[in-house]
Amino acid sequence: MKINIARLLDRLQRLGEVGALPGGGCCRIALTDEDKLGRDLVCGWMRALDLEPFVDQLGNVVAVGKGRHDLPPVMIGSHIDTVGTGGLYDGNYGVLSGLEIVETLRDHGVVPDRPLAVAFFTNEEGVRFQPDMMGSMVYGGSIAVEEAWASKDEQGHSVRDELARIGYLGELKPGWLRPHAYLEAHIEQGPVLERMGITLGSVTGVQGISWQEVTLIGTSNHAGTTPMDMRKDAGSAAAELMVGVRALVREMGGHQVGTCGMVRLEPNLINVIPRKAVLSIDLRNTDEMLLREAERRCAELIERVAQAEGVAVSTRQLVRLEPAHFSPNLIELVEQTATKLGYSSRRMASGAGHDAGLLSRFCPVGMIFTPSVGGLSHNVQEFTKPADLEAGANVLLHTVLALAKAD
Amino acid sequence: MKINIARLLDRLQRLGEVGALPGGGCCRIALTDEDKLGRDLVCGWMRALDLEPFVDQLGNVVAVGKGRHDLPPVMIGSHIDTVGTGGLYDGNYGVLSGLEIVETLRDHGVVPDRPLAVAFFTNEEGVRFQPDMMGSMVYGGSIAVEEAWASKDEQGHSVRDELARIGYLGELKPGWLRPHAYLEAHIEQGPVLERMGITLGSVTGVQGISWQEVTLIGTSNHAGTTPMDMRKDAGSAAAELMVGVRALVREMGGHQVGTCGMVRLEPNLINVIPRKAVLSIDLRNTDEMLLREAERRCAELIERVAQAEGVAVSTRQLVRLEPAHFSPNLIELVEQTATKLGYSSRRMASGAGHDAGLLSRFCPVGMIFTPSVGGLSHNVQEFTKPADLEAGANVLLHTVLALAKAD
Repeated sequence: MKINIARLLDRLQRLGEVGALPGGGCCRIALTDEDKLGRDLVCGWMRALDLEPFVDQLGNVVAVGKGRHDLPPVMIGSHIDTVGTGGLYDGNYGVLSGLEIVETLRDHGVVPDRPLAVAFFTNEEGVRFQPDMMGSMVYGGSIAVEEAWASKDEQGHSVRDELARIGYLGELKPGWLRPHAYLEAHIEQGPVLERMGITLGSVTGVQGISWQEVTLIGTSNHAGTTPMDMRKDAGSAAAELMVGVRALVREMGGHQVGTCGMVRLEPNLINVIPRKAVLSIDLRNTDEMLLREAERRCAELIERVAQAEGVAVSTRQLVRLEPAHFSPNLIELVEQTATKLGYSSRRMASGAGHDAGLLSRFCPVGMIFTPSVGGLSHNVQEFTKPADLEAGANVLLHTVLALAKAD
Repeated sequence: MKINIARLLDRLQRLGEVGALPGGGCCRIALTDEDKLGRDLVCGWMRALDLEPFVDQLGNVVAVGKGRHDLPPVMIGSHIDTVGTGGLYDGNYGVLSGLEIVETLRDHGVVPDRPLAVAFFTNEEGVRFQPDMMGSMVYGGSIAVEEAWASKDEQGHSVRDELARIGYLGELKPGWLRPHAYLEAHIEQGPVLERMGITLGSVTGVQGISWQEVTLIGTSNHAGTTPMDMRKDAGSAAAELMVGVRALVREMGGHQVGTCGMVRLEPNLINVIPRKAVLSIDLRNTDEMLLREAERRCAELIERVAQAEGVAVSTRQLVRLEPAHFSPNLIELVEQTATKLGYSSRRMASGAGHDAGLLSRFCPVGMIFTPSVGGLSHNVQEFTKPADLEAGANVLLHTVLALAKAD
C-alpha cells in the first residue's frame, strides 16, 4: 500500500494558497484571518474524510476517524500556522500527510483496529504570541491553558480573544484525548540529510534549548582620544563573548551547538566606543547534563570577559527547555519501516523544537524527518523534493498501520 | 597680564544659550537657524572689539583687528557649530578665548605689532553635512570650495543654499588671509590630562584616521539544526574581526588605537545564524607609516577571518586622513609659555580631528588642550573647570603676544 503523492502535493499547494505571498511561500501567522481560513480549509478536508474535528479550549483541532473506539487512537499531527515568510511544508506536511494516510486507507477499504486521529496544534511558530509550540505545550500539560490564553500580541490582543474572534475557542480541555502513540512527519529544517544523501531521519528527540540575553555596560568614549588601556568597551566584550561561545561549543563537540544571533551596540557609531552591548546566546544539546555543562562554562566565560574589560554585566534567561526523548520503540519502528520500504535512513536528534517534543511528555512519540533542500526553512524558498515527501508519508503510513493493530 | 576668566565664562554661557537644550548643553548644528544666531552673536562681539568680521565663500568668518597691517596676522580660531547633544566648550572655547585675548590687550592698551585675527570655521562637526572640518579643509586648501558647496544634508539642502539662506555666503576666497601662525585652544575631549593630573597639553599634531566599513556575507540558517561545522556565520566572523583588531592594535602599542564602534547583523534574531554583518573599523595613529602598517595587518586579518569562516567579504574606505604635524617651534613655545606661567603641561597628540589639523598644511600651527572632566565631549555633560579654562587662555594670550612681535 502506498500513499498518493499527487493528492498530497495538491493539498499542500491548496493550503499554501491561503495567505500566499506574491513571490512564493505563504504567511498564516497564528490566530490571524489567514490562519482561520487555513483551519477552515483543513477542517473541511477532515469532514470530507469522515474525520470529526474537535476543537479544544486552545484551538487545537483533533479529528478522530473510524476504528474500535474502545482503544486509544494513533494520532498524526503537526501545525498549520507559519512564520511571516513561511514555506509550504513546515508543519503543513505533517498534518496533510495524516489526511493522505486516512484517504489511502479508505481507498483500500482498510479499517484499522485503533481509530486514527489527525491533529493540528495552535501557534507552533510563536511569531505573534509567545511561547512558541503553545498548543502542544498546553495539550501535553507543560503549561496551563489560562497562561496561554493570557499571552498578548504587540497590539494587546490576547490569545483567548483571538481564538474567539476566529471561531476556534472550543470547550474541550486540552489533553482530553490521550493517544496510544503520536507520530509527526516534518521537514528537517537543517542540512544534514541532504548533505549525507540520506532520504529519511528517525528522530530520537528534540534538543534542549537555553536562551539567554547578556547585557554589558561599559563607558562611551571618543574612539580617537581614549587610550586603549583606559577603555571599557562593551562592544569589544560582546565580541570576546561571541568568540568564546563558539570556542567552548567546539571544545565540547558532540551534539552541542551554540549561536550568538543577535547583538545590539549603543550608540553604535563608528567613532564612539560602545557604552552598551546586548547579545543573545542560544545553546542546545540533546543531553541535559551536557547542556548544563555548556551553561556553566558560558557563565564562567561571561564573568571572565566582563572582569577583564571592566564592564558591568547582567544576564536574563529567555527560554529553557529540557531535551525531549522520543519512544525507543517508535524510533526503532520508524527506522525498520524505512528499511523495509527500501529508503535510506538515520537516527538523528532535532535541532528545532516541534509539537512532538512537547507531546513526548504525554504519550509515546515518533517522528520522521524529510530532507530540506539547502537546509532552508522559515523562508519562502523552503523546499522538499516530492520523492522525499512521498517516502516520508509512506513510512508514516506503514508505521501507523503497525501501531494501529490491537495488541 | 592675565585674561578675565569671568568675562570668558560669561561669553561661553551666553553663546551656550543659543540652541540651549532643556537638560543642559546645546545644539547649534552647522547652517541651521541656531548656527546663524550663534554666528550673529559672535560677529556682534567681534565688532564691539573693533574686529571686522570678513565672511568667505564657505561662511568661514575671519575678523581682523589692529596692528601693523603690512605684517601677516596671528590667527586664533576654532568653530562654534556643535553636535546634536553638544556642550558649551567644544570649539566655542577656542573662538571666545580669542575674543577674550583681544579684549584683555585692549584693557591694557597693548597694540601688538602684528594684527590679531579671530576666526571660526564652518561645519567642524560634520553632523548635517559631510565631510566634517569642512570650513578649515577648504580654507587650508585640502578640497575645493565647489566640492564643499555641493554637499547635501538628508533633506537634499546644499551647503551653498544653506549658507545663502542664513546670510553667510561671502565673496572672499577661502584662504584669502594666510596667517603668520594659527593658534587654537580646545578641550582635550579625552581622559589623559585629567588622569595624569596635568593642566595643559601642547598638541604636537592630529592623529591620522582610517575608517573602513567591512561587510561579511555568510549563510542564514537555523541555530538549532545546523551543525557547527556546516556554518558560515557572518556574526561570528564579525566578532573574530573585532577581537582581532583589538589584538593587533595592542600588539602595535605606542599611539596606535583601534575601535569597532558599529556592528549590524542580519537578520539579528536569537535563533538564526547571521547571514550578514556590517562593522566599522576605526584606526588612528600619529605616524603615517605605522597607520599604514595597522591597515596592512587589518587587511590580512579580514582576509584570514573571512576565509576561515567561508564568508564573502568586501571593504569600503569611509575616511582616510594622514596625520597632521604641528610646528615644532609653536609646540615648544606653548610648552615654555605654560611653564613660565606656572602651569603643568605635556606634549600630546590629538586623537580627535580639529580645524588646526587642516590648517597645519597651510601655515604654522600650535594648539593648547585643557582637561575634559571624565574625558567627556559631544555630550551635554561636557565640562572643563574654570581654572583650567583660565590657564589655557592665559597660555594662549602669552603665546600670541610672543608671536605677534615683529621679527
